[in-house]
Amino acid sequence: MFDFKIHSTEGAARRGKFSTPHGEVQTPAFMPVGTLGTVKGLIMDEVSALGAEMVLANTYHLYLRPGHELVHDLGGLHEFMRWDGPILTDSGGYQVFSLAKIRDLYEDRVEFQSHIDGSKHEFTPESVVDIQRTLGADVIMALDECPPAGADHSYVSVSNIRTIKWLERCRARFQELEERGESPQQTLFPVLQGNIYDDLRREHARQFMEIEDWTGYGIGGLSVGESKDDMWRVLELLHDELPMNRPRYLMGVGYPDDLLEAVARGCDLFDCVAPTRNARHGAAWTSQEGQVNLKMARFREDTRPLDTECDCYTCSCYDRAYLRHLVVASEWLAVRLLSIHNLRFLTALSEESRRRIDEGTFRSWSQEWLERYRGSGAQLTDHI
Amino acid sequence: MFDFKIHSTEGAARRGKFSTPHGEVQTPAFMPVGTLGTVKGLIMDEVSALGAEMVLANTYHLYLRPGHELVHDLGGLHEFMRWDGPILTDSGGYQVFSLAKIRDLYEDRVEFQSHIDGSKHEFTPESVVDIQRTLGADVIMALDECPPAGADHSYVSVSNIRTIKWLERCRARFQELEERGESPQQTLFPVLQGNIYDDLRREHARQFMEIEDWTGYGIGGLSVGESKDDMWRVLELLHDELPMNRPRYLMGVGYPDDLLEAVARGCDLFDCVAPTRNARHGAAWTSQEGQVNLKMARFREDTRPLDTECDCYTCSCYDRAYLRHLVVASEWLAVRLLSIHNLRFLTALSEESRRRIDEGTFRSWSQEWLERYRGSGAQLTDHI
Repeated sequence: MFDFKIHSTEGAARRGKFSTPHGEVQTPAFMPVGTLGTVKGLIMDEVSALGAEMVLANTYHLYLRPGHELVHDLGGLHEFMRWDGPILTDSGGYQVFSLAKIRDLYEDRVEFQSHIDGSKHEFTPESVVDIQRTLGADVIMALDECPPAGADHSYVSVSNIRTIKWLERCRARFQELEERGESPQQTLFPVLQGNIYDDLRREHARQFMEIEDWTGYGIGGLSVGESKDDMWRVLELLHDELPMNRPRYLMGVGYPDDLLEAVARGCDLFDCVAPTRNARHGAAWTSQEGQVNLKMARFREDTRPLDTECDCYTCSCYDRAYLRHLVVASEWLAVRLLSIHNLRFLTALSEESRRRIDEGTFRSWSQEWLERYRGSGAQLTDHI
Repeated sequence: MFDFKIHSTEGAARRGKFSTPHGEVQTPAFMPVGTLGTVKGLIMDEVSALGAEMVLANTYHLYLRPGHELVHDLGGLHEFMRWDGPILTDSGGYQVFSLAKIRDLYEDRVEFQSHIDGSKHEFTPESVVDIQRTLGADVIMALDECPPAGADHSYVSVSNIRTIKWLERCRARFQELEERGESPQQTLFPVLQGNIYDDLRREHARQFMEIEDWTGYGIGGLSVGESKDDMWRVLELLHDELPMNRPRYLMGVGYPDDLLEAVARGCDLFDCVAPTRNARHGAAWTSQEGQVNLKMARFREDTRPLDTECDCYTCSCYDRAYLRHLVVASEWLAVRLLSIHNLRFLTALSEESRRRIDEGTFRSWSQEWLERYRGSGAQLTDHI
């Protein structure tokens, strides 16, 4: 039921098709984040109209609210979210480390307190597989530890060993459940770690590949605060290590320019909360001016669309002056309209990347695009 | 350009058609409130799909943000809001008394400090007409003072005189602007006051009618905290006083049961923020159970639509369990989906009222409807 076919390549960039039990995903693809079973403020018809084919939901959040068992009882994650396309759930590990109030990391588990009510919980490699099986996404992720940016080599080395052990336990549990045959059709992606250390990155990738010929690979531990140069170097290294015919999901990326840079280095799937989080702060991406913040006085009487090159609903129907008014007045419609635009910005960028890779013009187009986007000047001023 | 035709009546209830330069409004009609030029969180296509034909915007809010001059420069209120149907703006007086930090009421004006930044402003009868002309709604409202519930007879008596004086000044200014001929086609509604005092209500209505044969009448000073019996008695009294062939706009009403009671007493137009405000608190109206709050644990696994009799998008696509999850998790989609439902609840109730008045079955239907709605028991428990 899971399959990845590469249609064309240009350098490391790949234009592929990832097949899942809930449909196909043309790659490179950006996956909107539906944290709690909803892409903040949008209905799924709108998400679909953005050109998104696959979405992400967060295990940590759904485990706490409303509970994975309830999601299951209500028909499973697809029915719960009203999304019959492919869904990926993360393991919850990243949120435990970034959101939970207190967490204790042990060799065999992680204990944490809910960020909502302080209640105590633990995740084990087995339990996150169980939870994700119960939720019922198409792609589920193995539990990993993601060392912070700046973690030293020896810490990351030890952490990598634990992540491998956890991966083997996740896999054993997943196989056990698969053999029972009662669960939804799913596949398990491992999460590659190793921080910015080339030797550890290479070692981790090779160890993973020895365990199994995975359906796909999560690339974790990037875009967590390291330099862009480090991120690109690690991606180039992984491109050489990982099998060509498996999708690579670069977790938590990203901003438009990062997405293009990562596509150029062979990544296929992306997710990031920046489109909706930026929208909440009045920030929007534009092809001509980079990231702009609509609070700026210069938009007060600006009757142009947010981005003249964008085909989203927001850019078709509204001008900057009205959007600025909504942002300044803290109106919810601002968040909704800017979310639509920012999400479309990334899905459109993915679409154009696919077209360009097919054409063999990705490299020249993306370089030109990045120069225009980064050279706009507006980016620095308005960056939130 | 303005015209009101009564198609049929049943008792005091009237089924009419209010014609404006931006189209017709079938009455009785509920007008969604677009405070700042947006019906909280919704796009105007959604508002239109609810069956709403006329919307309201708030002069006080738009005067402060983004400023009426800017709205005018951006094409006027219709273009600004992306709503080409009829719009009504209030005078701003009510918000000055309810929202502004400090306000000083004088014979000739009201001074106030912005609730946003404390800046000082004043409204005069002339200035609120000027502002509303600049905004460009179809129906604009005269400046009035709305004494609070519990105001004594002598206070209301004095206040009524001031409101009459202000009305005459509003009218003079409106005529002056009309004669210049440069402004949009608009009409000015006066606002009847008199609190719960029958003699003052009757006197005010008669004084208004002596001034002019107004295009329509705003009924103010009700639903501000007085008893329901007082409200119904005043409406019955006004029904006898006011001309049959003019629309009556009952300001700030209301909840579903209040709307039906007021239709039964001859009111034609309504507005209220309750549909969207309730939505923000997780509260929704249902025909079978009255007002319910979705936070209640009993909805946790409830896979029924919010209201099986409702044809809104929310009830067509979502169940109570998912809506409860969104409400409990404070997701913005909850507010949007409940706003759609609550607004549709009132527009559908208006539609059904019109059909029933035409049929001559309004009285029996509305009594049965009210008994079911009020007798549900859920109303008290869940009332926010």
